[in-house]
Amino acid sequence: MRTPPMKIVVLSGGVGGARFLSGLLAAKAPDDEITVIGNTADDIWLFGMRVCPDLDTVMYTLGNGIDPERRWGRTDETWNAKEELGAYGEETWFGLGDRDLATHLIRTKLLHEGVGLAEITARLCERWQPGVRLLPMTEQEVETHIGVDGADGIDTIHFQEYWIRLGAKVPVRELEFRGAEAAKAGPGVIDAIHGADLVILPPSNPIVSIGAILSVDEVAEAVRTTKAPVVGVSPIIGTAAVRGMADQLLEGLGIEISAGAVARHLGARSTGGVLDAWLVDTSDEAAVVSIEEAGIRAKAVPLYMNDDATTAQLARDTLAFA
Amino acid sequence: MRTPPMKIVVLSGGVGGARFLSGLLAAKAPDDEITVIGNTADDIWLFGMRVCPDLDTVMYTLGNGIDPERRWGRTDETWNAKEELGAYGEETWFGLGDRDLATHLIRTKLLHEGVGLAEITARLCERWQPGVRLLPMTEQEVETHIGVDGADGIDTIHFQEYWIRLGAKVPVRELEFRGAEAAKAGPGVIDAIHGADLVILPPSNPIVSIGAILSVDEVAEAVRTTKAPVVGVSPIIGTAAVRGMADQLLEGLGIEISAGAVARHLGARSTGGVLDAWLVDTSDEAAVVSIEEAGIRAKAVPLYMNDDATTAQLARDTLAFA
Repeated sequence: MRTPPMKIVVLSGGVGGARFLSGLLAAKAPDDEITVIGNTADDIWLFGMRVCPDLDTVMYTLGNGIDPERRWGRTDETWNAKEELGAYGEETWFGLGDRDLATHLIRTKLLHEGVGLAEITARLCERWQPGVRLLPMTEQEVETHIGVDGADGIDTIHFQEYWIRLGAKVPVRELEFRGAEAAKAGPGVIDAIHGADLVILPPSNPIVSIGAILSVDEVAEAVRTTKAPVVGVSPIIGTAAVRGMADQLLEGLGIEISAGAVARHLGARSTGGVLDAWLVDTSDEAAVVSIEEAGIRAKAVPLYMNDDATTAQLARDTLAFA
Repeated sequence: MRTPPMKIVVLSGGVGGARFLSGLLAAKAPDDEITVIGNTADDIWLFGMRVCPDLDTVMYTLGNGIDPERRWGRTDETWNAKEELGAYGEETWFGLGDRDLATHLIRTKLLHEGVGLAEITARLCERWQPGVRLLPMTEQEVETHIGVDGADGIDTIHFQEYWIRLGAKVPVRELEFRGAEAAKAGPGVIDAIHGADLVILPPSNPIVSIGAILSVDEVAEAVRTTKAPVVGVSPIIGTAAVRGMADQLLEGLGIEISAGAVARHLGARSTGGVLDAWLVDTSDEAAVVSIEEAGIRAKAVPLYMNDDATTAQLARDTLAFA
């Protein structure tokens, strides 16, 4: 029995975080308030438009606008603009759907009018009513860039190019959150973290989603110092990412692909990290002891979000563990 | 029998000019070269994209990409981005088709990279192969603005808003080619006009197409001084525009809606105008005498471009008259 209402903050990337959030919305008490700090480091300028894949995936998923098969982009989507870009000889590795374009066009128009990304996101959410307050981690441009093997040493490319065009199939040699050093937390972000009753790191990519959000010093500092407990859900089950391609990134950065290694990478708050507690899958129960030795409470519960029921149960387990 | 090949320059707006040009391509000798000076004064910024309706209508029409029913926009077009813009509460009076968007996105991207509109248009035409050299009248932004009755005097709105949103159904009180005073002719425009063997003013809107092109002083001066004859085709038959809504504009500016009045408005080159000769419809044969009295050779031929055959015949009549 929880009273009074909880203020829950979730640091989220795209698909995995959005899925967890849909479960959290089902699991929370009616008056609980959820604030999402969304990753913006995989945002990209494409054809003069500012595309924010993670913010949009959260917004569309929670607003019932997401394509349920792909888990990104819009329902009833068409791809005629993209087909035409290809006919003009332009690169079309990024999935720009016709319906999705409207979101990018409005965002870009408002950016050019001087409106901040937080306000823009709030206005877009007026349509989608995602049931959460969705805040960009920063309003400055932070972009994840990946160093890959090139003809003459390391070629640095935008994360999206690595992720989508190259299908994350080449070794990662370097990773940079370009712009992070100068970036400030977005409007409302610090207050939300400091005012939270619970901070959750959902099973988003630990490097390019959670790691990217924490690359903004102000945000990481707030997570390290908030009075709220910080509970994470492992994005790794066994030796593979639950969804997405987090494993390739971990491997490239020399981090073992396991629930325990990711927990230790994020670190215990008692030793300067960001975690108080960490949920691993029941199949990884053996890792609990070593995670707790690192100063992080740990517990094994079913992590697969196969359907609405298991997703909501994972959210309930997360709330209960906190 | 014409030898050697002719260099033909056509000052063109959108639908009417493009239709005439398709006939001219059918009527010309194989080695004749056509350069089109395209109107850019109805260009508009929409959602951060630079939209050039007349350039695109010429390009799509001559490149077989135009919707044959609407006579503007793309074949097999869908409107999902536009539908979504509406769902977000944005204004959607302008017909932004999904396929068409690709053209605007590429143009805008290149503009932001510092590429000039003439070079951009040439690159877009590499795909469409319109069979003409298509040159923007200027690379500076000239925009036609229309003064209409507002609550507190005259409201000035972009031509597209008057034309499309208001359906040209309100009285025109003022007309301004904003930016024209400072605009230079686009790359290649002056050389094309001075090097022409024939300059044609097709049945485009005499005010917002032909008039807009001539609002750039350098262009008007070149048309006045070229050694080539300048032949115009009346966009008015009887007391109405052949297509489009030119009549409302003429009325608003106090110009009689007749083939003769438009000829006199454009004026004889011998008296500082831009016309040597003017074709009127056979139904307007009675106007020939008064037009010739104004110093402009005139002839009556069938002007309706009902199909490919009549359109090509009009082009042949124009070449023959010159």
